[in-house]
Amino acid sequence: MAILVVGSVALDTIETPFQVKKDILGGSATYFSLAASFLHPVRVVAVVGQDMPKDKMDCLRRKNIDLDGLETKEGKTFRWRGKYFCDFNTRKTLNLELNVFQDFRPRIPFSYTDSEYVFLANIDPQLQKSVLRQMKSRCLAASDTIDHWINHKRQALLSLLKGIGIFIINDSEARLLSQRSNLPLAAKWLRQKGPEVVVIKKGEHGVLMLAKTKFFSCPAYPLEEVVDPTGAGDAFAGGFMGYLACRRRLDDKTLRQAIVYGSVLGSFAVEAFGPARLIKLTFRQIKKRVNAFRRLTHMELA
Amino acid sequence: MAILVVGSVALDTIETPFQVKKDILGGSATYFSLAASFLHPVRVVAVVGQDMPKDKMDCLRRKNIDLDGLETKEGKTFRWRGKYFCDFNTRKTLNLELNVFQDFRPRIPFSYTDSEYVFLANIDPQLQKSVLRQMKSRCLAASDTIDHWINHKRQALLSLLKGIGIFIINDSEARLLSQRSNLPLAAKWLRQKGPEVVVIKKGEHGVLMLAKTKFFSCPAYPLEEVVDPTGAGDAFAGGFMGYLACRRRLDDKTLRQAIVYGSVLGSFAVEAFGPARLIKLTFRQIKKRVNAFRRLTHMELA
Repeated sequence: MAILVVGSVALDTIETPFQVKKDILGGSATYFSLAASFLHPVRVVAVVGQDMPKDKMDCLRRKNIDLDGLETKEGKTFRWRGKYFCDFNTRKTLNLELNVFQDFRPRIPFSYTDSEYVFLANIDPQLQKSVLRQMKSRCLAASDTIDHWINHKRQALLSLLKGIGIFIINDSEARLLSQRSNLPLAAKWLRQKGPEVVVIKKGEHGVLMLAKTKFFSCPAYPLEEVVDPTGAGDAFAGGFMGYLACRRRLDDKTLRQAIVYGSVLGSFAVEAFGPARLIKLTFRQIKKRVNAFRRLTHMELA
Repeated sequence: MAILVVGSVALDTIETPFQVKKDILGGSATYFSLAASFLHPVRVVAVVGQDMPKDKMDCLRRKNIDLDGLETKEGKTFRWRGKYFCDFNTRKTLNLELNVFQDFRPRIPFSYTDSEYVFLANIDPQLQKSVLRQMKSRCLAASDTIDHWINHKRQALLSLLKGIGIFIINDSEARLLSQRSNLPLAAKWLRQKGPEVVVIKKGEHGVLMLAKTKFFSCPAYPLEEVVDPTGAGDAFAGGFMGYLACRRRLDDKTLRQAIVYGSVLGSFAVEAFGPARLIKLTFRQIKKRVNAFRRLTHMELA
């Protein structure tokens, strides 16, 4: 049974200190589905405008990503223009046009309602909840969010947390939502709100997971060159959920392995502009980096 | 053969958002020697003034820390007053009185010149070099530094690097010295300057080590309460060097284990004001946290 992802498919213009790329394929559902597709079949629910070039969607179709749930609406595709600064840790949104995404009300095709794994990428928590209501069978739901929803839809977000199994969030947003600056305490606070598993993404510093009562701390892969950090978090989520779906287990050992797969997919995502590196990636390269990851973090105590 | 540490023994006044503590025992050599003493005998070369209370030095002597190299000079002890802000990641020096430390010229007692392990805590790199010249046998030297010496004694520091085996430095200073914002690249740059092993401390984000051509990435222990971060870096260095000295090996496996011991000692250091937690610590508690560390980072790949 496939993974369902509900999120954005966008056209991004990205500025880094070294280059500018215009109108490249972006959006949370794009990065998530490309990453997850190496491990498990993915179904996408999203909306694009009539200006979305067909070849960009064919890129996803060639990866066996199911786009039956992708709606094409009159109007323009969601566009984001962002700029990264020298250290790649800070970014600034230069322009945001929601366009057809403004009125996005995700409708899950009947054939998708049996998906056992659901990823609710960053959209309004009320819409995220509406997706769960449309699922006909029990599923493992994971969700992400951003500061905008924490600041403006806090109650809806807390209500969503009661219904999901995995909450994936970045460190600054975990602190903002929990109002705790200490990250382990923030993770515990979030877990008390519902999800059994809390995954806090720390960018170049790796990931902290709290699964039931156990913490797992995993560093990031030490990349020597970062070209474009866009989509790293969604690629992480894709690798993570893809691995869980392919293993069909949710024990501590499998969750830790999934964190490694997520970290590896996230590390590939930043090696080229937009989703270019994920598009060219092979499963062999993923396996190789998973093994390199093991060497990077391995220790045997005497 | 013991470890020799050359650095400061000070009286600190520390302000956190919750408390102020006056004139507590501090200094790099203090934290280093307390941490290392759990694993290996330590000898201290430092200077204090006549105002250093005897009971504070007895605290160290009771840990079997050899203070024959500690000089008591006419005048006042080095004093530092610092303030930590809410997230404990930023600190501000409110007052600094070098006092007897101003003219510190480390003289290594003859009985210390056979030390096989030497830790050069943060002092003027020219003084660090003078310590190495006084050693009569080959030793494994490690050193630390701070931004002040990078900005004002860059050439002396680079010259020191040629003569040491291990360079321990924090992330912002590694970036400053190497002029590379990417940390893996900064580590490679530093290694090319001499030391076979480069250890970059990232505070709450753990440690990145480059030993020969291999990276090892180790997260920090997820503490739920930080009382006072002072001395964490020196306690890390003490645990790290103490473990290397006690194992008498320098292979990759031992270096990784040493990083874990360093991280564990550093994590204890921040649990109370000043060196209070290190003073009360037991070896049993260290072993327990080393095992917890293994569970925290352990993963088995399928």
